[in-house]
Amino acid sequence: MKTWIFPLGLALASTGAMAVEGMWQPSQLPGLGKQMQALGLQLDPAEMADLSDFPMNAVINFGGCTASFVSPKGLLVTNHHCGYGAIQYHSTPEDNLLEEGFLARSLAEEKMPVPGYKIWITESMTDVTDQVVGDLAPSLAGQPYYEAIQRNRKALVAECEQEENVRCKVSNFHHGAQYVLIKEQELRDVRLVYTPSLSVGKYGGDIDNWMWPRHTGDFAFFRAYVGPDGKPADYSEDNVPYQPKRFLSVSAGGLSDGDFLMVAGYPGRTDRYRTAEEAAIYFERYYPAARDLRNELIDVIKGASEPGSEARIKYEGTLAGLANYAKNFQSMVESYDKTELAKHKQTQQSALWAWVEGEGDRASKYGNVKQEMDRLVEQQWAHLERDLILGYMGYNQMISSAQRLYRLAQEKQKPDLEREAGYQERDWDGIKAAMERMERRFDPAVDKAMLHHLLSRYAQLPASERDPVIDQTFGLANGLDEAKLSATLDSLYQATSLDQTEVRLAWLEKGPKAFEQSDDPFIRFAVANYPRLQKEEAEEKRLNGELLRARPQYMAAIIAYQQSQGKPVYADANSTLRLTFGTVQGYSPQDGLVAQPFTTLEGLKRKATGEVPFDASQRQLELISQRQYGGFDDKAVGSVPVNFLSDLDSTGGNSGSPTLNGKAELVGLLFDGVYESIIADWDFNTEFARSIHVDSRYMLWVMKELDGADNLLQEMDVVR
Amino acid sequence: MKTWIFPLGLALASTGAMAVEGMWQPSQLPGLGKQMQALGLQLDPAEMADLSDFPMNAVINFGGCTASFVSPKGLLVTNHHCGYGAIQYHSTPEDNLLEEGFLARSLAEEKMPVPGYKIWITESMTDVTDQVVGDLAPSLAGQPYYEAIQRNRKALVAECEQEENVRCKVSNFHHGAQYVLIKEQELRDVRLVYTPSLSVGKYGGDIDNWMWPRHTGDFAFFRAYVGPDGKPADYSEDNVPYQPKRFLSVSAGGLSDGDFLMVAGYPGRTDRYRTAEEAAIYFERYYPAARDLRNELIDVIKGASEPGSEARIKYEGTLAGLANYAKNFQSMVESYDKTELAKHKQTQQSALWAWVEGEGDRASKYGNVKQEMDRLVEQQWAHLERDLILGYMGYNQMISSAQRLYRLAQEKQKPDLEREAGYQERDWDGIKAAMERMERRFDPAVDKAMLHHLLSRYAQLPASERDPVIDQTFGLANGLDEAKLSATLDSLYQATSLDQTEVRLAWLEKGPKAFEQSDDPFIRFAVANYPRLQKEEAEEKRLNGELLRARPQYMAAIIAYQQSQGKPVYADANSTLRLTFGTVQGYSPQDGLVAQPFTTLEGLKRKATGEVPFDASQRQLELISQRQYGGFDDKAVGSVPVNFLSDLDSTGGNSGSPTLNGKAELVGLLFDGVYESIIADWDFNTEFARSIHVDSRYMLWVMKELDGADNLLQEMDVVR
Repeated sequence: MKTWIFPLGLALASTGAMAVEGMWQPSQLPGLGKQMQALGLQLDPAEMADLSDFPMNAVINFGGCTASFVSPKGLLVTNHHCGYGAIQYHSTPEDNLLEEGFLARSLAEEKMPVPGYKIWITESMTDVTDQVVGDLAPSLAGQPYYEAIQRNRKALVAECEQEENVRCKVSNFHHGAQYVLIKEQELRDVRLVYTPSLSVGKYGGDIDNWMWPRHTGDFAFFRAYVGPDGKPADYSEDNVPYQPKRFLSVSAGGLSDGDFLMVAGYPGRTDRYRTAEEAAIYFERYYPAARDLRNELIDVIKGASEPGSEARIKYEGTLAGLANYAKNFQSMVESYDKTELAKHKQTQQSALWAWVEGEGDRASKYGNVKQEMDRLVEQQWAHLERDLILGYMGYNQMISSAQRLYRLAQEKQKPDLEREAGYQERDWDGIKAAMERMERRFDPAVDKAMLHHLLSRYAQLPASERDPVIDQTFGLANGLDEAKLSATLDSLYQATSLDQTEVRLAWLEKGPKAFEQSDDPFIRFAVANYPRLQKEEAEEKRLNGELLRARPQYMAAIIAYQQSQGKPVYADANSTLRLTFGTVQGYSPQDGLVAQPFTTLEGLKRKATGEVPFDASQRQLELISQRQYGGFDDKAVGSVPVNFLSDLDSTGGNSGSPTLNGKAELVGLLFDGVYESIIADWDFNTEFARSIHVDSRYMLWVMKELDGADNLLQEMDVVR
Repeated sequence: MKTWIFPLGLALASTGAMAVEGMWQPSQLPGLGKQMQALGLQLDPAEMADLSDFPMNAVINFGGCTASFVSPKGLLVTNHHCGYGAIQYHSTPEDNLLEEGFLARSLAEEKMPVPGYKIWITESMTDVTDQVVGDLAPSLAGQPYYEAIQRNRKALVAECEQEENVRCKVSNFHHGAQYVLIKEQELRDVRLVYTPSLSVGKYGGDIDNWMWPRHTGDFAFFRAYVGPDGKPADYSEDNVPYQPKRFLSVSAGGLSDGDFLMVAGYPGRTDRYRTAEEAAIYFERYYPAARDLRNELIDVIKGASEPGSEARIKYEGTLAGLANYAKNFQSMVESYDKTELAKHKQTQQSALWAWVEGEGDRASKYGNVKQEMDRLVEQQWAHLERDLILGYMGYNQMISSAQRLYRLAQEKQKPDLEREAGYQERDWDGIKAAMERMERRFDPAVDKAMLHHLLSRYAQLPASERDPVIDQTFGLANGLDEAKLSATLDSLYQATSLDQTEVRLAWLEKGPKAFEQSDDPFIRFAVANYPRLQKEEAEEKRLNGELLRARPQYMAAIIAYQQSQGKPVYADANSTLRLTFGTVQGYSPQDGLVAQPFTTLEGLKRKATGEVPFDASQRQLELISQRQYGGFDDKAVGSVPVNFLSDLDSTGGNSGSPTLNGKAELVGLLFDGVYESIIADWDFNTEFARSIHVDSRYMLWVMKELDGADNLLQEMDVVR
């Protein structure tokens, strides 16, 4: 079964020296060696497949982002926007680290870890497809099939986690065609070491987000600690810096236009193998609706919190996240027509089915899967608008914490292996940390305003799409009455005590009975709403079970077809460690316009307006005026390069990924893609898909010239 | 006095082959010959100075724009946005030429001239500085000095206009240092021949206005007619096409990157010789305030007229004009900080005064003028906000027509030469045409809404800045009461009959007495407001008289200083015929971005959204998809070039100017400048000052492939 997944020779022959589409699993690297070396790789690709060695061992899963070790003392670097939550956690109006930046000049000055903040180092990836689905009866389908798979996955995870201080997971590749057991070392004491000011780290803000030209110093430093015995440990004063097996040198020499580069990281999700029908639903219905809802919630949060207030600071992270994907979805919608994605998907799919209908036994092997996929996709999206609104209710922290606490109490009644994923014993610390962390990200007025908005949207759904428990709890049975809804929410927020951290933590220990007898209105809602959620979850599992039968078959058809065409085959991104490579490369975003691969300090200065998000400090502007480059300038560029473009294949989750030159020295951090590249998640396009990196020379310049982070520069291995 | 104005050898030696700053008077061309020929001019520059010969004789003053003859039968081409008013005049919701485009397939199908639409061909330019100011007593100052100059100018004009069918004017160069008598032949029967659809002629609309990349087919064709005797005549069925002395061939070969080009036209206004203090007032106070007011008026007009309604169609031209300069002023404000204009102006000025304080008799010659200029500039701007609001009241057609009619009645009491410029017998036809034309551009609801807005802004001025007559007429003496103001305006608009064309025309014939006895509320206001306007005008004349003494002295200092530095010297633009030259040239609008010099059909297609202003027709998109280039494609560009960039020196008024290659063949029409070039009106910058042209090959492609304008293509001399 596995042989058809990795026909690398074929894949690369067809793309030549162009941008190489593909997010490769480390085990695939040996097969890619020749192409990578032809572009400029100086390492042995076979060694790079070894997760315990350089450079892969230095690459860290930073929880939705990527980071990398850059010193023998556990110093790690990631994007500012990946460390944003932690930086924000330590910020108050009086001591606003987020605004001003922060530098620990000694270990003692480093900031306490944020509850629940952990990092992971991938230790091994083992194919377990046979153990997960090999023994399942062909007759098994729907929910039973789904649950059997989950049981097998959980058993593998439990067995793997017998070992101390590791986190294990079974990841699904190719939408169920392959399962891989991933073992990660887990470090639990991660402290903030250094962040530049917001005016460096988020220069350009939401305006420049996804944009080129770009001048963002999107980096921050943390340090991993372990117990005095060298083993992972919770925070303690006695802890000592972690000594990674491998770390990256940081290049002060940087790259030039056309140079080879590679990025190792944890790309989150791509959708390159979805059906044309799914694409149509996403682009024509889901993205526009979700974009609108995100923009509405942004307005609601801003309306309920003054700029600069404590409430606003608490929601800066939420706002950034909402805006980020509002813009992402907007780009999707814009690019959909321009790139003629619908037509392209249809053409691809027609060709696929024509090929299936062709010679050999293809029709009997794959012939039924199209109809089956169409049927399941239709079911999956039958309640798009309702599901969207209820999904975004997850942003409401009173409802989501009440539901999570009650669910935990319910799951605790079962043996651990039968508990729902996310509620097993291994997850309890994470749930507790989330309940603690909430106090820094919660404001009742904002929370209430968001709920009000979502409920008023919900109230406008047809009755058949509404739920009696929600209608009754929030008084919506007779339609929307804004004033009445306000009054209802006021009284709920007044009566609840879930906004107190100790109360939430106390609920962690209680059984279902206690919930069922509670007077807290949000706990009562969680209890009343529970049967509906259970029912919906069962329906979802049935559907997922059916999709886990159909999709691997659909993927098998695609892969067999692509193989016959000599096209590259790699799995959609799934938050597992991948490597992608390419070259430093500009592009033409529009007819009559060329984006050059580097931006400069002078360009940064020219953008400065003195106002957020273009509020470069006077000191920074003066250093630039005086051309005080500190030796980090590039001759060809004529200044210190700030950001650069590459043509490699990346997506969200790659944020913070070390960008490596041919010797695997760190030459930058990947932090974004250009606006025109967003749709590449669905359809890679060598003309427009460009990643944006912060240049290591700008990082070093900021550290040395602007922030005087000499202690860190000495600790790191800075090379020319 | 004149010798120091044109030190051309010096001027150009310092700029070399770079973009040549300068809007040169035709008489200066012989001195520019070597430089122009070095860049690629193939004609004799001395011949080009001859206004009666090729190519200057083919260049037409199109009333605020420029046009050129392109056939022996009086066919002329200008920008679509220059012909906009005329196209709009012929458009109705039922027969929307503006939207659909229009092509006359024979002379008979050409559209009747719009009342008052005239064009002018410059016949001669004669220095009359001595006649205007040579004999004036040195003691003459203030209003008497101003009026003496006006008298001399009017006498020269009257003498010149003894000749039939000419229009004469005395233009002021170098802010009063030179006066030139300009004699123009006036053609009064100008008919619409051909315009592409709005989706071609205004593709990109206000979004792309001042922007690159650009894909606008900004061209339209008219034809000049004369009487059967070949002499200029008012419209008549018997009229025949005018036979220009010279016309331009149209190139189907076009230009390439770096090629020489030149533009002849009527640039309106530049401010390159103003003081640093004036720059500060304009950029820090005037431009921001005027931009805001324009944006407010745009909102008011849109709020008072439904899209697509007859009212909205009537105001499309007004909206376009308001938006155009709102964006222009916004760019000024943005560029002011970025280009450090204030600092640059201060540095220039300090150097100037340091030079004046230096050797020789400079201090005694120029030493007093700085203080004098500062004093006068302060007076000029003492009531900036009031003057701005009252100035924009000119957009209100009831008030402005009433005031104009009453003023005319007053002026008619005087001998013609003593009448105010604009109210002499030579101007009466123009006033009448404007009164007729109003019916196509006036809607009472919109007019009232604009007045309401301006009056509510006015009402918020301090009492010292307000006028009793205005306060009383509109009931504002006790401050602003929106409801009361609405009621007042409703009753004024109900009572007036000035909204009827025949009523306005009847007032043209009446004397002041009739006005003073009228019940029409707007006529009553014009009468009551007259003394204030007279007083303000007298004050303005005094100030202008003083400035006409001071500014030429200030200019003399600048010119003497620049001459000592080997810097170019040319007069600020003043709507007279100029020639500017340069090369086809891209630029870098921002760090990390390069604007290439040509855009293509494919880029136009990629911008298409199906919605205004990116609503290219299906037929156009299909022609592009099929690569039906009609032989107008360029090898290097790989397609039909649509628009291109050049580095020559232009400004508003150059719109529609023929862009000429080294043989003076028409290779395009200038129609805009890039956003970053707008501030060049104050300070020319070789890095950012770029003009935008529509390529003749795109014009020919639209005519042949899209609109089938074969009759015109045959009439023109299309060359390779």
